Amino acid sequence: MPHTVDLVADLGEGFGSYTMGDDEALLDVLTSANIACGFHAGDPRIMDNTVRSCVRQGVAVGAHPSFPDLVGFGRRAMDLSPDEVRTDMLYQIGALQAFAAAHGTRVQHVAPHGRLGNLVAVRQDYAAAVADAVASVDRSLIVLAQDGELADAAHARGLRVGIVGIADRAYRDDGTLVPRSEPGAVIHDPGEIAERTVRMVTEGVVRGVGGHDIPVRCDTVLVHGDTPGSVALAHRVREELLAAGIKITSLTDVLDGRDA
Amino acid sequence: MPHTVDLVADLGEGFGSYTMGDDEALLDVLTSANIACGFHAGDPRIMDNTVRSCVRQGVAVGAHPSFPDLVGFGRRAMDLSPDEVRTDMLYQIGALQAFAAAHGTRVQHVAPHGRLGNLVAVRQDYAAAVADAVASVDRSLIVLAQDGELADAAHARGLRVGIVGIADRAYRDDGTLVPRSEPGAVIHDPGEIAERTVRMVTEGVVRGVGGHDIPVRCDTVLVHGDTPGSVALAHRVREELLAAGIKITSLTDVLDGRDA
Amino acid sequence: MPHTVDLVADLGEGFGSYTMGDDEALLDVLTSANIACGFHAGDPRIMDNTVRSCVRQGVAVGAHPSFPDLVGFGRRAMDLSPDEVRTDMLYQIGALQAFAAAHGTRVQHVAPHGRLGNLVAVRQDYAAAVADAVASVDRSLIVLAQDGELADAAHARGLRVGIVGIADRAYRDDGTLVPRSEPGAVIHDPGEIAERTVRMVTEGVVRGVGGHDIPVRCDTVLVHGDTPGSVALAHRVREELLAAGIKITSLTDVLDGRDA
Amino acid sequence: MPHTVDLVADLGEGFGSYTMGDDEALLDVLTSANIACGFHAGDPRIMDNTVRSCVRQGVAVGAHPSFPDLVGFGRRAMDLSPDEVRTDMLYQIGALQAFAAAHGTRVQHVAPHGRLGNLVAVRQDYAAAVADAVASVDRSLIVLAQDGELADAAHARGLRVGIVGIADRAYRDDGTLVPRSEPGAVIHDPGEIAERTVRMVTEGVVRGVGGHDIPVRCDTVLVHGDTPGSVALAHRVREELLAAGIKITSLTDVLDGRDA
Repeated sequence: MPHTVDLVADLGEGFGSYTMGDDEALLDVLTSANIACGFHAGDPRIMDNTVRSCVRQGVAVGAHPSFPDLVGFGRRAMDLSPDEVRTDMLYQIGALQAFAAAHGTRVQHVAPHGRLGNLVAVRQDYAAAVADAVASVDRSLIVLAQDGELADAAHARGLRVGIVGIADRAYRDDGTLVPRSEPGAVIHDPGEIAERTVRMVTEGVVRGVGGHDIPVRCDTVLVHGDTPGSVALAHRVREELLAAGIKITSLTDVLDGRDA
Repeated sequence: MPHTVDLVADLGEGFGSYTMGDDEALLDVLTSANIACGFHAGDPRIMDNTVRSCVRQGVAVGAHPSFPDLVGFGRRAMDLSPDEVRTDMLYQIGALQAFAAAHGTRVQHVAPHGRLGNLVAVRQDYAAAVADAVASVDRSLIVLAQDGELADAAHARGLRVGIVGIADRAYRDDGTLVPRSEPGAVIHDPGEIAERTVRMVTEGVVRGVGGHDIPVRCDTVLVHGDTPGSVALAHRVREELLAAGIKITSLTDVLDGRDA
Repeated sequence: MPHTVDLVADLGEGFGSYTMGDDEALLDVLTSANIACGFHAGDPRIMDNTVRSCVRQGVAVGAHPSFPDLVGFGRRAMDLSPDEVRTDMLYQIGALQAFAAAHGTRVQHVAPHGRLGNLVAVRQDYAAAVADAVASVDRSLIVLAQDGELADAAHARGLRVGIVGIADRAYRDDGTLVPRSEPGAVIHDPGEIAERTVRMVTEGVVRGVGGHDIPVRCDTVLVHGDTPGSVALAHRVREELLAAGIKITSLTDVLDGRDA
Repeated sequence: MPHTVDLVADLGEGFGSYTMGDDEALLDVLTSANIACGFHAGDPRIMDNTVRSCVRQGVAVGAHPSFPDLVGFGRRAMDLSPDEVRTDMLYQIGALQAFAAAHGTRVQHVAPHGRLGNLVAVRQDYAAAVADAVASVDRSLIVLAQDGELADAAHARGLRVGIVGIADRAYRDDGTLVPRSEPGAVIHDPGEIAERTVRMVTEGVVRGVGGHDIPVRCDTVLVHGDTPGSVALAHRVREELLAAGIKITSLTDVLDGRDA
């Protein structure tokens, strides 16, 4: 049986008359999409059009909920109570579910955006709030996360979890990421990123800064469409994954295969 | 078989630290609730709490979507395209559906709020936009409307429609309402309102200003909790309906009975 | 004494992480700027940076207030009361005045944006609301408008008015614009637009569709930076105005010259 | 010469159709007002009406700027950059200045609201951001603060500072407040609060929990109108200040007297 992986990107992050990233150029590459739900980006027209495009291209749709901070694009920490996080999640997930229903599909997964996405990896209370929201609205939703508190909270509630492989970041030998503030934290070479991605998927390891292979899980690879070269990099990653005999398919299929 | 009718009110119309109306005092009276969805009022905490209270009291929940105008409480006309209306409806209905799911229930109906609610009665394009949104997200949703374009558009799409009886407004002999700008347009006497409500439900008529009985349909009666005396009036209406042998039950039950 | 005219464009129309138009490329061309004030576009950082850039380049700053409709970019009509228009104007003008003060300048003018800008030309009540707001906050502010209700209302209150010449629109012989819905309403040829602009400024006329010269006033020319070719067109207009011996200077200077 | 003090409260904290507190009942008591500027509460109509009422009653107006968090009423911490704080302050102060100008007065002071108000007392970067905003927009504005970073930053920029006396909180012998989490932190007895207020103003001391008198400064006393009994307490404080021979007058007058 071939190795499998999902390719996901953030889509629908414009607002009103504003655009962000090149969604059309990414749709050929992806098998899943994190769709903005109106709190950091996105509006009902953009959500509708993005879900329509995804359905047309066979890309699975996921909710990309955020702190309520449009002017800050969800990148600023907010001191919300866990109940505020939980209810903000429900609202955004539900909104996207309506567009999914209108286009004959279902929301596949939930992937918190921006600063909230960072915080749920380390804050137990926010992780529990997100996992509680998902579990209460639809237990078939997959939680997309890095290793961390959210993944743990989702597992603890019996939810399925898709782990994002981070191919463009350096790893310490203890398996943690080198902080962005340190030199060498981010890997920029497309060939190296693609190669690391392939090893994550086929061997379940990534080479750490100390020269050792670190075990990692990679159910989905996050690519981007909003910076120069990012779409080309996404294509490169896709091509090298295919060249390595890896089957690229939606997160649902990836996890179904793992479970089988 | 007894006559049946639903009692509905707008709930959850606070925002953040602000309150509006006395929801708790109304919950004893109602069988259904129109719940604000965040565009004219309501926020995720208020939606969550309102749905929880409704479920606890056995009150069916409905979406009360609006133009996007928080500062204007959805009372100001906005020149939206039909597609903007349709997608704004989907977003708000979906958001409420998530809270319904989280509390183990389903959204029963959709009742457009404020100025949008007025416009869908007379604008065919907005009526079609709302009906399209409802039909695409969940065909089991009931459209709550006055007689008019929205009711027609919903019927045309095979959706169930609940007609709101307007017991506190004067009718002309041709069946249209006396405009609010004219004297006598609004009836203030609680006894008269209650009596007219009973006749609407039991006889399907209301006495017009010319002295003739006008045929009307009344699946649900809209009561209020945000003005002095409104909660008392709601109780009065409920008591007189019961005294007349009318069964007060959720809109779904009312329509199921009609269909049976 | 040479003919004079102002060159103005809408600037600062991004929001948060979003950009709109190429403000930097336009700053070399302009003598005045209409700066978004947060209701249809713009946020406090963008307003601060735009005012700073204008001061650095010697471009006079003006307020570009709008209906409160960020997702609709102020292009959708809203049924506001005149008092709502007046107070929304005060809020936005004041906000820009603070950034002007912080950068050692003053707001020169007020130019309503988008749909509000269209409506104040024809609705007497909205025109009065805008003129009242301007007159109450600072009587030295210039009202920038097309011929119409707002210009009349401003004149009636003793405010100075700068008339925008519309060089890329066809005129009927009665001096009104050919509606956009009719063929030939918009002129696209850069050379023709530049030539019409020069005639407006030097001769005070524009050639109508019937072949006659129509008298027009042109204190300022509105150029754009948000469509392909628009920056090049702005440069072309500027060059031909200079080649015709016209002095390009801020709206204040233009009107001071007219008054002298 | 009599002792002097200002009486201030937060006003204009409704939004759209929502009300908050009893502004009318407080206006008789106050000499200054902190007016919400639209980011946590307040809208252009409410700002306009509140400034009008203040001018009519001879109450000096101040800006009450906040983090941009309407649904959270400005009570939730947000991780803004100092430049974001500075520009958000400019925007809100400017907006209020326009209403002040429209009603023939000037903004007297700036008092950060809610969580921002707490943070500027202890965060040097936010304090500097607020003080920079005030200094750049109008050096005659008074900064209203508790003892702490904002007061220091304002003094360092040569701005005038009005210190709020905290009469309903217990003091430790080192002059710091007993944290709210500890028993006895908040004083509820109206008579005791009024007496402590009088001593703050006339003697410049407050009795600490250890039984010693602690030196404090009190240029203004913050009263409330949004909780049961708060308006009565405000009247009680006012009466006892007057009974003690203290002159109650606007913050400007209080500071002018101190400087003389």
